[in-house]
Amino acid sequence: MKKVGMVMLLFASLCCAQESGSFQPASTNVWGADYPRVDNAGRAEFRVKAPDATKVKLNFWSGPKLDMVKQPGGFWTVTTPPLVPGFHYYTLVIDGAEVADPKSHSFFGGGKDASAIEIPEAGSTYYSAQDVPHGQVREIWYNSTVTGTWRHALVYLPPNYDTQTKARYPVLYLQHGAGEDETGWIRQGHANFILDNLIAAGHSKPMILVMAYGYARRAGQPLPDLTGKPFGSPEMRQAMQEMVAAFEDDLTQVLVPYIDSNFRTTADRDHRAMAGLSMGGTQTFQVTFDHLDMFSYIGGFSGAVGVLGNQKFDVKTAFNGAMADPAAFAKRVHLLWLGVGTAEPLMMLAGITKLHDELSAADIQHVFYQSPGTAHEWQTWRRDLNDFAPRLFQQGAQ
Amino acid sequence: MKKVGMVMLLFASLCCAQESGSFQPASTNVWGADYPRVDNAGRAEFRVKAPDATKVKLNFWSGPKLDMVKQPGGFWTVTTPPLVPGFHYYTLVIDGAEVADPKSHSFFGGGKDASAIEIPEAGSTYYSAQDVPHGQVREIWYNSTVTGTWRHALVYLPPNYDTQTKARYPVLYLQHGAGEDETGWIRQGHANFILDNLIAAGHSKPMILVMAYGYARRAGQPLPDLTGKPFGSPEMRQAMQEMVAAFEDDLTQVLVPYIDSNFRTTADRDHRAMAGLSMGGTQTFQVTFDHLDMFSYIGGFSGAVGVLGNQKFDVKTAFNGAMADPAAFAKRVHLLWLGVGTAEPLMMLAGITKLHDELSAADIQHVFYQSPGTAHEWQTWRRDLNDFAPRLFQQGAQ
Repeated sequence: MKKVGMVMLLFASLCCAQESGSFQPASTNVWGADYPRVDNAGRAEFRVKAPDATKVKLNFWSGPKLDMVKQPGGFWTVTTPPLVPGFHYYTLVIDGAEVADPKSHSFFGGGKDASAIEIPEAGSTYYSAQDVPHGQVREIWYNSTVTGTWRHALVYLPPNYDTQTKARYPVLYLQHGAGEDETGWIRQGHANFILDNLIAAGHSKPMILVMAYGYARRAGQPLPDLTGKPFGSPEMRQAMQEMVAAFEDDLTQVLVPYIDSNFRTTADRDHRAMAGLSMGGTQTFQVTFDHLDMFSYIGGFSGAVGVLGNQKFDVKTAFNGAMADPAAFAKRVHLLWLGVGTAEPLMMLAGITKLHDELSAADIQHVFYQSPGTAHEWQTWRRDLNDFAPRLFQQGAQ
Repeated sequence: MKKVGMVMLLFASLCCAQESGSFQPASTNVWGADYPRVDNAGRAEFRVKAPDATKVKLNFWSGPKLDMVKQPGGFWTVTTPPLVPGFHYYTLVIDGAEVADPKSHSFFGGGKDASAIEIPEAGSTYYSAQDVPHGQVREIWYNSTVTGTWRHALVYLPPNYDTQTKARYPVLYLQHGAGEDETGWIRQGHANFILDNLIAAGHSKPMILVMAYGYARRAGQPLPDLTGKPFGSPEMRQAMQEMVAAFEDDLTQVLVPYIDSNFRTTADRDHRAMAGLSMGGTQTFQVTFDHLDMFSYIGGFSGAVGVLGNQKFDVKTAFNGAMADPAAFAKRVHLLWLGVGTAEPLMMLAGITKLHDELSAADIQHVFYQSPGTAHEWQTWRRDLNDFAPRLFQQGAQ
């Protein structure tokens, strides 16, 4: 029976992924896939079947771009030099078509389901599943009066949320980057395991994470017609600002009340934080500074303040003067946290470092964290969260 | 700043998916993707950029295989004839490389993250998000003493689970098919929306769904060496039976107790059901008939009893004689439910119909459901669940 055949073939592939020397199948592979595989030095070996192709390239988004070499049997292979530990997006370019590697799981990034490979970091257990109590990640759908659509979000609840039915928890709103979606912090970032481990070690207070979908269009708002408008044009900039404003309204007017109604939160600014990576960092600054009555902890992970709209940043006048009085600001905002990877593109590294310098010069209390050797990638943001979360909800009324 | 560019480009793609005549972007697309698109007749139009390819094919797994045609600008396109409504897996074959369509979301099927397109079914709202109370889907991780690994499962909790803190609920264990995983019933099947809608209409009792990972290898069990063993060989068959046995032990010895400890279930056989599609149906029959002390409702969705091991099915002796006495069986098993799509491969359709005939001839009380015009695909299984769930937990002690 044909069905038996399929079951057996799949089983055979499941059961038989083999090690080869020091190379082992990557943890990001689909089950049973021998490739891609990684060795102890962080080298990765890739293989794809493309029997009739004339050119196949391996394209790391933050890393090497390599030509693959045709082997007998229609396979193309390549081995990378040692890669930085962490989670690296990549695609294959097969005769000009940029596609995902069928042997890798896909992760939503760059506006599509892209491939990625996890390069283990020796000694780092903080973002993997350990034998500690685990929280649960929930999917929620809420009907947004702002966008007029059902919106999907993920919610991490700490261990014992279900059993300690009188307990109330603070909330961290945690945003993905451009091209990613609400699944990124769990699938790519392992935010749930990071919090599980921090909470088990007593380093973080138990908290709820809310991961929202970072794009929005206001109900009834027509699609902007950007035909023929050059990149960076006022029209495109305005359309983008409208999107961020719709997101801000959805988050503050619909999602936060929904979370506070449906989960046992402590619903005040002392127990509400927001952070985001890259575009999510920019959104975080806009949302939190517009709503300091709602948020008192603010994190920007490789997220450039001032990128949005390209305005010149001035500590005294930025965000309607929220930082004009450093002492008042330090009292009001319990934590302002900036992070960047030292291997990020120079403009990002320089921009965030400059922001840090300006804040320091103006006596604005904040934390500046540099992730050694990591790029505009998830390993930076995992480290960011691991540094940021323990600082939350330690001040103000508990 | 480079980052601004990326954000803006992504935004531009987000905001500007356009309709074209009666063709509309498919609901399964990544955001902003104009293609694939579907018209009212169920025709679908595909487009992929592969400028240097010499041959590109569109490959529906249960549907047409079509050559795509090269257009100016490096794009390849094709329009299908009208497709059956529902969720159809497909891949693109670019110069011999079988890959996912970068414009479609990926869904785990066929042992990889594959593309799929949703063809709307006119008038069918039962599997989409309606304005009714929504349950939540939770991700859980449990440490399995059977497999020696952390295992991931999804759990649907009905609306009001959090607020009706004294209520206890029956549980349906719901399994995916071969090549799929524990995410299938939510991502592909929309089981959460099906239950939301059934519960809101009063057609189903509120229940918990548990969707487990259907593959397992016992802790310490070595990888079977199937090198040189022909397909369907006794060695492969044995290895597969070991996998199913490990899954059975994990489900009955670890997962069920975990669920009963961590959720407010009614933990007895009258309030426990199991169903599965295809391979999951086969697993369901094995697990439930081995454990009639635990389960009293049984569903096989295109899941052939007897496929596993290819044994000849005999009502009198099957499953250790559980059906030997039809009256006793009807009293013990509250529901035995079989479903198949009329457009499934003949062997599947004939096999399940024959099982139905044999059960009828032997006076074994059961339900036989045929899904009109659908193949070995998710539209069949959505309909199955929609027919099956309302029949659950209506008998026995409530």
